[in-house]
Amino acid sequence: MRTVDIIRKKRDGLSLSPEEIRFFIQGVADGSIPDYQISAFTMAVFFQNMTEEELFHFTMAMAETGDRLDLSRITRVTADKHSTGGVGDKVSLVLGPLVASAGTAVSKMSGRGLGHTGGTIDKLESIPGFVCELDQEAFIRQINEVGVAIISQSGNLAPADKRMYAIRDVTATVENTALIAASVVSKKLAAGNKNIVFDVKVGRGAFMKTEPRALDLARTMVDIVRRAGGQSVAVISRMDQPLGMEVGNANEVAEAIATLKGEGPKDLTGLTLTLGAHMMVLTGSAPTVEEARRVLKENLHNGKAIRTFARMIEAQHGDPRVTEDPGLLPSPRFRETLLAEQSGFVHMLDAMKVGTAAGLLGAGRSRKEDPVDLSAGIHLIRRMGDRVEKGEPLCELFWSGESVDPGEALEMLASAYQMRETHPGARAIVLDVVQ
Amino acid sequence: MRTVDIIRKKRDGLSLSPEEIRFFIQGVADGSIPDYQISAFTMAVFFQNMTEEELFHFTMAMAETGDRLDLSRITRVTADKHSTGGVGDKVSLVLGPLVASAGTAVSKMSGRGLGHTGGTIDKLESIPGFVCELDQEAFIRQINEVGVAIISQSGNLAPADKRMYAIRDVTATVENTALIAASVVSKKLAAGNKNIVFDVKVGRGAFMKTEPRALDLARTMVDIVRRAGGQSVAVISRMDQPLGMEVGNANEVAEAIATLKGEGPKDLTGLTLTLGAHMMVLTGSAPTVEEARRVLKENLHNGKAIRTFARMIEAQHGDPRVTEDPGLLPSPRFRETLLAEQSGFVHMLDAMKVGTAAGLLGAGRSRKEDPVDLSAGIHLIRRMGDRVEKGEPLCELFWSGESVDPGEALEMLASAYQMRETHPGARAIVLDVVQ
Repeated sequence: MRTVDIIRKKRDGLSLSPEEIRFFIQGVADGSIPDYQISAFTMAVFFQNMTEEELFHFTMAMAETGDRLDLSRITRVTADKHSTGGVGDKVSLVLGPLVASAGTAVSKMSGRGLGHTGGTIDKLESIPGFVCELDQEAFIRQINEVGVAIISQSGNLAPADKRMYAIRDVTATVENTALIAASVVSKKLAAGNKNIVFDVKVGRGAFMKTEPRALDLARTMVDIVRRAGGQSVAVISRMDQPLGMEVGNANEVAEAIATLKGEGPKDLTGLTLTLGAHMMVLTGSAPTVEEARRVLKENLHNGKAIRTFARMIEAQHGDPRVTEDPGLLPSPRFRETLLAEQSGFVHMLDAMKVGTAAGLLGAGRSRKEDPVDLSAGIHLIRRMGDRVEKGEPLCELFWSGESVDPGEALEMLASAYQMRETHPGARAIVLDVVQ
Repeated sequence: MRTVDIIRKKRDGLSLSPEEIRFFIQGVADGSIPDYQISAFTMAVFFQNMTEEELFHFTMAMAETGDRLDLSRITRVTADKHSTGGVGDKVSLVLGPLVASAGTAVSKMSGRGLGHTGGTIDKLESIPGFVCELDQEAFIRQINEVGVAIISQSGNLAPADKRMYAIRDVTATVENTALIAASVVSKKLAAGNKNIVFDVKVGRGAFMKTEPRALDLARTMVDIVRRAGGQSVAVISRMDQPLGMEVGNANEVAEAIATLKGEGPKDLTGLTLTLGAHMMVLTGSAPTVEEARRVLKENLHNGKAIRTFARMIEAQHGDPRVTEDPGLLPSPRFRETLLAEQSGFVHMLDAMKVGTAAGLLGAGRSRKEDPVDLSAGIHLIRRMGDRVEKGEPLCELFWSGESVDPGEALEMLASAYQMRETHPGARAIVLDVVQ
C-alpha cells in the first residue's frame, strides 16, 4: 500500500477501504508518513469529504493509535461531556459534581486554555493544592468513590490526531466538519467513555459561526459515537457573549461554586441543567429529560451538588474550603473598571473580544508554554439585554502581573460592547438538541 | 503575508495577486515555506485551478527564482523545442541540426532519462567524447558558429519548480494541467528562448492519455509563452507506439543519423519536419509552414543536415566520424530476438511497455543515480500495421550488462505486441497543431 495512492483515491472522490484508512492513520501516528503527504490528504478530504463509513473508520483508527483508557473497573454508570470551546465556559466545573450528585458518574479528561478560550484544567488549578495529573488507577478509584474526577488529558491520547491537527492548523484545512468531528470523537473514544454529550457552541465566540454548520458537526459527531457502539446527544448552544458573568480562572471557579449552590447566572445554570439531564437519560439514571432536570435542580439547592464538588476537590488534593469561602482562591493585585460611554441596552457583547481581553490581562495563553495568571480575569457587570446609563460600570478587569498595561484590554472590551436604544430581545441559551 | 492565508484563499477559489504568488514561489525556492504547505497548496490548485492571469505570474515567478540564461549575445534567430516525453523520442537529435542547417539556430537544454522515457543527454553521450556540460559562454559561441548546441540543463534552473515537482510526485498532484504547464514553461523561459515549439505527446506511452487533455495542456503552454512576450506553437503527436524503430541510446543516435540523411522512418521524419517547419515560421526564417517543410526536406537529402550534426558533435568534443560510421558508437555484447507466437497484423505496440523493457535491459534508469548502459536497447523490427507470420522476428533486444536477465524484458515485449487478423488502419503521427 502506498500513501500517494491513498491520497490520489481520496482526491478523485473514491471511498477508502478500512485497511487504507488504518494504514494512513498508523503512518501518521508512527511518523512513517511525512507531513507533506498528511497535508495533501487533508486538503483532498476538504474537497471530497468522507462517507459516514469512512469517517467512522478514520475516527476509530485515530482512537486506537495511542493510549486508551480502560474504564471497565468503574462500578458506576458513567458519562462524559465535550464542549467545542467558548469563552467563560465553566460548565464542566458545575456539571461534573452536579451530575455525579444525582447518580451518573462523570469521567472527564480536559485540556488547558489556548487562544481566546480558557481551559478547565487551568481553572481547577486555581484551587489551592488541586492536582490534575492522576494516574489511571487513581482516576478510576476516585470515580468509584466520589462519582466524578476531572484530570488533564494524557499526552499520548490519539497521537495521530495531535499531529494531524498541528499540520491542518498551518495548511488551511481546519475548517472541515469531518476532520473536526474525527479529532474530537477520537479523543473521547480513546478516553474510554461510551456515553457522550456534546455541547456544540455557535456564534461569535465559537469555532462554528453559523447554526447549520454547528448542526452538521453535531450530527456527524453523534453518528460516529453511535457507530462505535456508544450513546450520544449533542446540544447546540449560543456563544455570542461569554457564558456567565466571569471570564478568567479563579473567578470562574467562584462562579461555578455559586452555581452549584443554586446562585449561578441563568444561562450557565440553564445550559448545565440541559447537558446534565441528557447525560442522566443516556446512562439510564433518569427516565426523561424533564425528570432528570428536576432532580438536578433540586441538588443545586439541597447542598448535594456543592458537597460533591468539595469531595472531588479533596480527592484531588485541593482545599475543599474554597466551596465555603471563595476568598481562598488567588485574588488579583490590580483592578480597573470600564464605564459606559453612552446609555442604552447592551445589544452585543462579543465573546471573542472578551476572551482576547482576558488573555491580555494574563488569564490565557497565546502559546502552549506561556504561564497563566490564575487571578486575572473579567467580571461582566452588564451583559446582553442589560440596561446601562452613561458613566455606570460595564465590567471590571483584574490581574496581578506588574507588567500588564490594561489599556489594550480596556479598549478591546469597550469595542466588545455594542449599545442600542432598544432591548435586543430575550435569547434562549440552548438552540437545539440533536439526538 | 502568511502562507496559510494564501493556501486558504486558493482553497476557497479566490484569485491570488501577483504579490501573493511571488511570495509563495520565493518561499518555495528559498526553503522558507515547508513541504507540507507546498503540498496543501498544490492540492488546493488541483481542485480550484488558476486563472490564466495567475498561471502567468506563477510561471514567471518560477522562471525568475533561479539561474536565467542570457541569450542576447546570440547573433542568429533562435528557437527551442520541448517534448512532454515519449519512448524512442530522438526528435531533438534530428531537429536541432536540421533546423540549424536551414537558418534558424537551436539553443537547447535537455535532461537525462528517468522512468520509461529516455533522455536526449544520455543519447548524445553515447557519441565517443561528446560533452554536454558547456558553460554559458561556450554554449552561446557554439550557437553563433554552428547554429545548434544541445547541453544538459543547469542545476539551478527554476529551483522552485524542481522542489515543487518532487513534492507533487508523492502527493498525487502531478496530474494538473496548470501545474504541468508552469513546470515546463518556467524552465523554458529561464533557458532564455522566446520562440518555443511544444511537442505534446498523447497516448499509452505519454503522460497525457487523451487528446482533450493534451490539447488543454498545449493551449495552456502556448498562452503562457505569449503572455511572457514570446511566440509559440504546439504540435499534438501520437505516442501509442515508440517513435521510430529504435529505443535505447546508441541505437537511437544511429537512427537519428540515418534520418538526417533522409533515410529515417516515416513517423520520426514526419514529426521532425512538422516541428522544424513551425520553428522556422516562428523565427521568420520561412514564410509558410509548407515552404519551411520543403527546405528542411531538401536538407535531409542534400547533406546539409547531417553535416550540421557533424559540426555540432565536433564543437562539443565528440567524434564527428559517427555520422559516417555509426559502428563507432558503443555496441552491445549480447543479443536476443523475440519471435511472433502468432501470425497477423501488429494492432498495438505499447510504448510504455517497450520503454520499461528497454530500462530492464539497462538503457534507462529508475532512480536518478543509476548508471545507464548506452549500448542497450530494442530494435523494433515490426511496428503497428506491419504484417508478421508466426515464428518471424518481432524485435531484437541487446545489452552489455553481465547480470542482465532478458527474460522479464522479453515477456514485457511479448505483451506489448497485440496481434489481430485485420490491419489497424493508417494513423497520422501529427494529430493537431495549436497556434
